[in-house]
Amino acid sequence: MIVVMKVGTPQEEINRISAELSSWGLSPEKIVGKHKVVIGLVGETQELDPFRIEELSPWIEAVLRVEKPFKRASLEYRHNEYSEVVVSTPSGDVVFGQHHPLVVTAGPCSVENEEMIINTALKVKAAGAQFLRGGAYKPRTSPYSFQGHGESALELLAAAKKASGLGVITEVMDSPDIDKVAEVADVLQVGARNMQNFALLKRIGRQPKPVLLKRGMAATIDDWLMAAEYILAAGNPNVILCERGIRTFDSKYTRNTLDLACIPVLKKLTHLPVMIDPSHGTGWSEYVPAMVMAAIVAGADAIMVEVHPNPQKALSDGPQSLNFDQFDQLMQDIKPFVKLMGRERPEPALAR
Amino acid sequence: MIVVMKVGTPQEEINRISAELSSWGLSPEKIVGKHKVVIGLVGETQELDPFRIEELSPWIEAVLRVEKPFKRASLEYRHNEYSEVVVSTPSGDVVFGQHHPLVVTAGPCSVENEEMIINTALKVKAAGAQFLRGGAYKPRTSPYSFQGHGESALELLAAAKKASGLGVITEVMDSPDIDKVAEVADVLQVGARNMQNFALLKRIGRQPKPVLLKRGMAATIDDWLMAAEYILAAGNPNVILCERGIRTFDSKYTRNTLDLACIPVLKKLTHLPVMIDPSHGTGWSEYVPAMVMAAIVAGADAIMVEVHPNPQKALSDGPQSLNFDQFDQLMQDIKPFVKLMGRERPEPALAR
Amino acid sequence: MIVVMKVGTPQEEINRISAELSSWGLSPEKIVGKHKVVIGLVGETQELDPFRIEELSPWIEAVLRVEKPFKRASLEYRHNEYSEVVVSTPSGDVVFGQHHPLVVTAGPCSVENEEMIINTALKVKAAGAQFLRGGAYKPRTSPYSFQGHGESALELLAAAKKASGLGVITEVMDSPDIDKVAEVADVLQVGARNMQNFALLKRIGRQPKPVLLKRGMAATIDDWLMAAEYILAAGNPNVILCERGIRTFDSKYTRNTLDLACIPVLKKLTHLPVMIDPSHGTGWSEYVPAMVMAAIVAGADAIMVEVHPNPQKALSDGPQSLNFDQFDQLMQDIKPFVKLMGRERPEPALAR
Amino acid sequence: MIVVMKVGTPQEEINRISAELSSWGLSPEKIVGKHKVVIGLVGETQELDPFRIEELSPWIEAVLRVEKPFKRASLEYRHNEYSEVVVSTPSGDVVFGQHHPLVVTAGPCSVENEEMIINTALKVKAAGAQFLRGGAYKPRTSPYSFQGHGESALELLAAAKKASGLGVITEVMDSPDIDKVAEVADVLQVGARNMQNFALLKRIGRQPKPVLLKRGMAATIDDWLMAAEYILAAGNPNVILCERGIRTFDSKYTRNTLDLACIPVLKKLTHLPVMIDPSHGTGWSEYVPAMVMAAIVAGADAIMVEVHPNPQKALSDGPQSLNFDQFDQLMQDIKPFVKLMGRERPEPALAR
Repeated sequence: MIVVMKVGTPQEEINRISAELSSWGLSPEKIVGKHKVVIGLVGETQELDPFRIEELSPWIEAVLRVEKPFKRASLEYRHNEYSEVVVSTPSGDVVFGQHHPLVVTAGPCSVENEEMIINTALKVKAAGAQFLRGGAYKPRTSPYSFQGHGESALELLAAAKKASGLGVITEVMDSPDIDKVAEVADVLQVGARNMQNFALLKRIGRQPKPVLLKRGMAATIDDWLMAAEYILAAGNPNVILCERGIRTFDSKYTRNTLDLACIPVLKKLTHLPVMIDPSHGTGWSEYVPAMVMAAIVAGADAIMVEVHPNPQKALSDGPQSLNFDQFDQLMQDIKPFVKLMGRERPEPALAR
Repeated sequence: MIVVMKVGTPQEEINRISAELSSWGLSPEKIVGKHKVVIGLVGETQELDPFRIEELSPWIEAVLRVEKPFKRASLEYRHNEYSEVVVSTPSGDVVFGQHHPLVVTAGPCSVENEEMIINTALKVKAAGAQFLRGGAYKPRTSPYSFQGHGESALELLAAAKKASGLGVITEVMDSPDIDKVAEVADVLQVGARNMQNFALLKRIGRQPKPVLLKRGMAATIDDWLMAAEYILAAGNPNVILCERGIRTFDSKYTRNTLDLACIPVLKKLTHLPVMIDPSHGTGWSEYVPAMVMAAIVAGADAIMVEVHPNPQKALSDGPQSLNFDQFDQLMQDIKPFVKLMGRERPEPALAR
Repeated sequence: MIVVMKVGTPQEEINRISAELSSWGLSPEKIVGKHKVVIGLVGETQELDPFRIEELSPWIEAVLRVEKPFKRASLEYRHNEYSEVVVSTPSGDVVFGQHHPLVVTAGPCSVENEEMIINTALKVKAAGAQFLRGGAYKPRTSPYSFQGHGESALELLAAAKKASGLGVITEVMDSPDIDKVAEVADVLQVGARNMQNFALLKRIGRQPKPVLLKRGMAATIDDWLMAAEYILAAGNPNVILCERGIRTFDSKYTRNTLDLACIPVLKKLTHLPVMIDPSHGTGWSEYVPAMVMAAIVAGADAIMVEVHPNPQKALSDGPQSLNFDQFDQLMQDIKPFVKLMGRERPEPALAR
Repeated sequence: MIVVMKVGTPQEEINRISAELSSWGLSPEKIVGKHKVVIGLVGETQELDPFRIEELSPWIEAVLRVEKPFKRASLEYRHNEYSEVVVSTPSGDVVFGQHHPLVVTAGPCSVENEEMIINTALKVKAAGAQFLRGGAYKPRTSPYSFQGHGESALELLAAAKKASGLGVITEVMDSPDIDKVAEVADVLQVGARNMQNFALLKRIGRQPKPVLLKRGMAATIDDWLMAAEYILAAGNPNVILCERGIRTFDSKYTRNTLDLACIPVLKKLTHLPVMIDPSHGTGWSEYVPAMVMAAIVAGADAIMVEVHPNPQKALSDGPQSLNFDQFDQLMQDIKPFVKLMGRERPEPALAR
């Protein structure tokens, strides 16, 4: 349920109403939008009478029920205003959101050694990326496959961050690792296989770093938004959703089926920013450029692309990684499309 | 197996080689590309020795095996040259293919009455479409749902064609109906539910009108190309493939999952043109524009969009139909993207 | 909507009510159950007032709406009484239905030659089957695969039927073939790929032979029952449903995923008999026996098993076919389970 | 790779060979079967020459490669001998395995209060179950749904165990909880949503209690066995696999699609015991009995059934729970089938 306040409501009045609602046993959350303030209420609201709330103050414009199973993640909860997820990076704040420039994340599947990760960071930065991706902890189907270099890889990511000025996105696979990953990462990633690892979601929701939540392989849109709701409900409002392909009956030519229609669907349902990962989504580098283009014009707020200095020799996911030249070309090719979408990034000098 | 002829091979030499191969019990097909002529061989070629063919003539450049299960549909079979499917319409020939302008097909799910179909035809023509779609025979899940007006609807399509100058695409559901549908339609559609109705595929492959082959709801890419192969093998080389969404585990917010990655995949595997139908692909008109945009920049050769004068009152598929204003807006919105892709259509005056 | 008549209602009264309902523009169907007669009404019944019907006669016990989208196929339509599909065979009538012995259908994927089909018929008859299956027209993914021997195979099936006394089940792929197939077959099969070939369903519903309707690869239970409804609505009440595996994300070890839970689900929803085909359902003969057992104890009314004299040399579906010894063993092994389920067949001497 | 020792090989010889292989940098594991001893080798064996191993001792019968991606989980690794997972319970050891009596696990979705769990334990024990299931930590799609009573529920499970003598199976959702769950549980369950939570799998593989590994909603058979391999590779050989339905395109009448064919498939691929959970598999109590029957005759080693004193009032999963009478009836109904399968449990007096 949300309480929409009239424009110009004094701060004390909002505080007074919130205090009153708290005294009823509710947990009001103040949501400050561009134009209006909304008080969000989640919990035992089913038997609450909206009229009883409306009577609390003449400054209340409307009291509305959120009908969706996901409450805080719903677009209604923010009274149809999209979230801005602001991420602090060495080169300044980067904002993920509907009315902001396209955010580009690039890098290898896994951090292999210092040279490769620093080299990759510098190259993708030069090509126009804002974030470096790279796995320290890798979820691999087989226990005998390369599992990531773990903590030592975190140090290499820190070095690459320092060298390039890029923000860092990397995956957390286990709740005891959150703190050490959060020391280096600017955005913590929850992988597809952990999308319904609710213990991890709760704990990651209690720390302050923004979270990239990948869609599970067989997760419905509702499942996915409910997983985001776990993080939001635990107190962290900064969630970015990332589609990376779902599992269907055909995996001969693409590893997964990239569900690009999720973009307009999510834009209707939720205020959270949407990222698309065509590298996992298709599994083959040759299909990545067409899907990056498609994602951008379909309205994605961000893209994630796997880039490796030498895909043939990658320790994981080589076939789906672009090399530096291919990534550079892609970044050139998308420019006019990004511009048409009104998503181009101002020149660096202006961005600072 | 294909026999690639050198540039400049005299026609008589090609005829001589074909005659020789026929005398071996094979069925050579001459494929004339932009630069080269290729002789295609399908059938009992597994035990054929390529060297034995090479010895037939010094004009033979190479003899290559087609490794794919689909032979005539494979890009290799045409020596990596994409097909041009030329459709004759009242306003002149329209070409579907990789290096040709985007083809737009629009119209209602089903032909309801004369006024609506003529009105729709004129509107979508004015907005920039080349083809009118509209069902005379409708495959409906329930026997109690509107089944299409059948033959009388074909007459209305003929009237709309005459009034608008658009080409007509409509579905054939049963082999005995092929002839009467082909009298009106410029392109015969095989629907998703009939994609593996092999009897229909064989019969439609024996008539000369181009065929639009929709992907089945659970058809793999291979299944789909093998279905096209049935038509090609029966003698009709003019097949257009149409993706319209596949069935997955989530159908709450979209009727199907639109597999846009099929575009680059098909472009790698086959020479046949690719159309995308986001109306069936998503099932909701509000998601259609984003998916049309995405399809275009991902490399689609054609799009199909459901348009109805009054979607709320449509006899079928209302929720996924755009109204005239929405379609007109969409056609305006896609223009810069179509241009960037090098797919814009020259002004009508030049097109004649 | 159904009109349930009281026990003992005179025939003239039923006729009178039916005539009255016909005069209202409805199409009443008399359904004679074990204990009661029901008058079924399908069509524009939404605005019909049940009370107005009840007033027609004191012999009316109740007037009930059928809420399901499938009307004639629903269990309610027959007032919770299961159908008996009686098939006439050279050895007498065989009944498919809930309270009848298990029906066993066996035979090769395709009819290859006279010796193999007669030999197979005699062997599966000796092992205890009631029906011979065998394809004359084969739906094959590739146009270059063996397509069945067509009409000549129908003659061989007739010979095998004569030699063995078995009933014959074979597939019709195209509506123009219905008559010639019906001359030989005792049950006409509609294959999975044609489950939504509505033209075929309508035509097959207008002829009198019982129909085996296989579930489509991506057909929901509702889709499947609606396909059955097409046949029932066209006038043929004798439909048997056959589950043969659905398409899912995993096809490495089994060709399809056999949905055995469909048995209790269908028993709740429909009065039509249910057959299970574990040969297509799993795709590998080694998994067939366990799934036959499971199908029987889960309540299947019939099973279909592929049997071939020499599976290694089969022209189609060899890997999923049992040989004679394996089938014979299976028929022995299921006996105690069939008996426990109360589905054993009386000794032949008694059955005549 | 496995080294199969001849029957009667002296213990010292096995030790000597193992020591020798260890000195080569390998990690030999001794697997004692009914008749033979096998030495398993996992790791960098790709370049090992089997002949070099064979030369180590005349007592070596054969050196065989394991071709499957899962090594320790493969049936070959134990030289085609099925595992016995022995679980210690207050009423004595219960063995899960191919040649052992059917193991029955029953109980509520979640532990609600002391009375209900003790009452349920006593009832299901009386009906014939060996294990009590009951969730203390519950993975729920929504953060606002009942999440289980956590630690206090563990105490209640301990009380129910003491009162009934049943073994206890309960889920661990987060690695920091393993120890406290293991204090009460006799078998630790990894839920479907955590099947690829590799951090959890590794940690649970390092503790000694047997593990029940549920199949993920979109997990292929290979994914599932690779998840088991994580546990085995970490040192815990006692893994039971539990199928609980997979996600497909149809969830209208059943929550999931129960893949019973996985039973014969797993019996071919792995030595690990197989449990079937038709409660989650179908989602509706009315379909559970038919699927329990089917599972048993298809060769399941164990079944898991949700039972609740009052399903209408259950805090979670009520619709799929049997009440006491229904469970009691089911246990009666399965008896003759269990007996036919040679899986009946000797009378309790004999079992001690």
